[in-house]
Amino acid sequence: MDKIQQVIANIQPLDEQVMEEARRRQDNLTKPQGSLGQLESLSVQVAGIKRSLRPKIIHKVIFTLAGDHGVAEEGVSAYPSEVTLQMVYNFLRGGAGINVLARHVGARVVVADLGVASVLQRHPDLRDKKVAMGTRNMAKEPAMSREEALRSIEAGIELVEEEWSKGIDILGTGDMGIGNTTPSSAITAVITGADPAKVTGRGTGLNDEEWKRKVETIKKAIEINRPNPKDPIDVLSKVGGLEIGGIAGVILGGARFGIPVVIDGFISGAAALIAGTLAPQVKPYLIAAHQSVEQGHKFLLEYLGLKPLLNLDLRLGEGTGAALAISLVEASLKILDEMATFAEAGVSETSYRR
Amino acid sequence: MDKIQQVIANIQPLDEQVMEEARRRQDNLTKPQGSLGQLESLSVQVAGIKRSLRPKIIHKVIFTLAGDHGVAEEGVSAYPSEVTLQMVYNFLRGGAGINVLARHVGARVVVADLGVASVLQRHPDLRDKKVAMGTRNMAKEPAMSREEALRSIEAGIELVEEEWSKGIDILGTGDMGIGNTTPSSAITAVITGADPAKVTGRGTGLNDEEWKRKVETIKKAIEINRPNPKDPIDVLSKVGGLEIGGIAGVILGGARFGIPVVIDGFISGAAALIAGTLAPQVKPYLIAAHQSVEQGHKFLLEYLGLKPLLNLDLRLGEGTGAALAISLVEASLKILDEMATFAEAGVSETSYRR
Repeated sequence: MDKIQQVIANIQPLDEQVMEEARRRQDNLTKPQGSLGQLESLSVQVAGIKRSLRPKIIHKVIFTLAGDHGVAEEGVSAYPSEVTLQMVYNFLRGGAGINVLARHVGARVVVADLGVASVLQRHPDLRDKKVAMGTRNMAKEPAMSREEALRSIEAGIELVEEEWSKGIDILGTGDMGIGNTTPSSAITAVITGADPAKVTGRGTGLNDEEWKRKVETIKKAIEINRPNPKDPIDVLSKVGGLEIGGIAGVILGGARFGIPVVIDGFISGAAALIAGTLAPQVKPYLIAAHQSVEQGHKFLLEYLGLKPLLNLDLRLGEGTGAALAISLVEASLKILDEMATFAEAGVSETSYRR
Repeated sequence: MDKIQQVIANIQPLDEQVMEEARRRQDNLTKPQGSLGQLESLSVQVAGIKRSLRPKIIHKVIFTLAGDHGVAEEGVSAYPSEVTLQMVYNFLRGGAGINVLARHVGARVVVADLGVASVLQRHPDLRDKKVAMGTRNMAKEPAMSREEALRSIEAGIELVEEEWSKGIDILGTGDMGIGNTTPSSAITAVITGADPAKVTGRGTGLNDEEWKRKVETIKKAIEINRPNPKDPIDVLSKVGGLEIGGIAGVILGGARFGIPVVIDGFISGAAALIAGTLAPQVKPYLIAAHQSVEQGHKFLLEYLGLKPLLNLDLRLGEGTGAALAISLVEASLKILDEMATFAEAGVSETSYRR
């Protein structure tokens, strides 16, 4: 916990003065004020995060963290846990959705094992941060110990520290874990106080009956474990997941290093709830990539006060939405940096501005 | 009209068989079926347009067409018409929003004068397609003659023909014209039958009173000119714009050459209404880039049956939203082309699929 507290203590507020300058520059560019909508506000936010009026994005990193879930044995997912492992190997071979989209936007993918329920073959591109062989079944007992929960967050922080020397100008979060919409819904319900049925979706594709079972499982897990909503480590340990804890750590680590953090979909959002409850000062560092199909996601983003950039009905996870959003953040910074001002372009300022 | 009719007669339906194969391939890629949402359907659409299971996007072109509007003298815009000219020069110098975003996604920008109300200096990158020195004030008389309307559409077709030899794998539309949300609202009202107040927004930034005057101007223009909603050339000539006609031509020309057509915001959408009413067979070629802040845009997209990819509160025009959306189309095709199938990745197909 010392490490986590130290990281949190070192998260700086955004640079308001740079943000003010960036806003002024946006207003001086050859367009009606505000006409580039979220691209304008994004550029101002990132300028504040990076403490630079014209921040450059060169190194882009997607952290894709994997873990298994004991609760999968309750039949809350359409797929067996072995797929988590198979997909990790797919990531390492470059054949998964996240690999394709990361290449498209020029990002590198860091794949980490936080808690896959199998011993993985070593691979030069796989970060071994295994905390446990998956979580335990939260419908019967706490998903993990408090120690394990803390360790998963620390592991996420370590991942950012280790990549820092290679360069990170922006990061995106991603997840892989069969069954992990279930703990994400549980976390969302506990922290926001919402009814589990309201924040539980169909994951990778449940029918009505399976969905009802999933909701019942979440309710049971909350009832048995009684997580304390004011103590995010307690919530994470009782109804969370190892990759979710890891992502919370990546978020904290990102903010600590002054890196804009693009959070992917519902699972990353649940991790952001943990991180944001633990340290509200991370929130200004967050950028919501997209609005997932998962119904809890909208709820969670509103709770965090985040407006998603994309609405493409994605529900894959892995960091796929984050990769696409990183390209939009880049675009916003190029607008700030490269567009001509009224004076430079000889567009009469008084006429085109109000 | 002969040229336009010939182009329309040569628009092919999409290749259903290729689309079926693309859909099957999407279902075999290592992800839950449908989990990449609109990226999946986009890739299927573009495969059908390009008649290839794995279409490649190399040459990307944004057509940014400029024109002035006589109706601007009614005070429907916050800016004077001279800004149209100034912005054309800004495009040619590479300093405008569209230049920055086109560079970001690797697209080239074709700037064309369809009807700027000034004599423009020659420039190697400026296509001279001037039909008239701006439209006339539609609140007093028809914006243009039927001949001029036809000529503007033909000019748009010519632009695509001229670029074809340099390569176009995908195109985006864009506009520049002070006052052009007014004809766009008028076109939308006439063709969809909606009340002008419902489809009229605040353009580059009108206050309540100015907005009311804009709505009254549109109502008056429709009353005086009585455009026939069944005759899109009549609508274009009476309450349209030269760059809007040009964009309608770009859309028709794009479909004729089997090119996916990414339509930008509200003004391009109004052009798509003209093109789609003239030739309903263009509709499968259309991709809606984004949901503009302009309230008529949502209405228009629903009428055309299009779902926008981005929702970033943009209202700049120029093709800025189209540029960003082109990158998403590219991403969708890379997913189709580069992702591993279940068999290739050793992910057990029966387990990860339903």
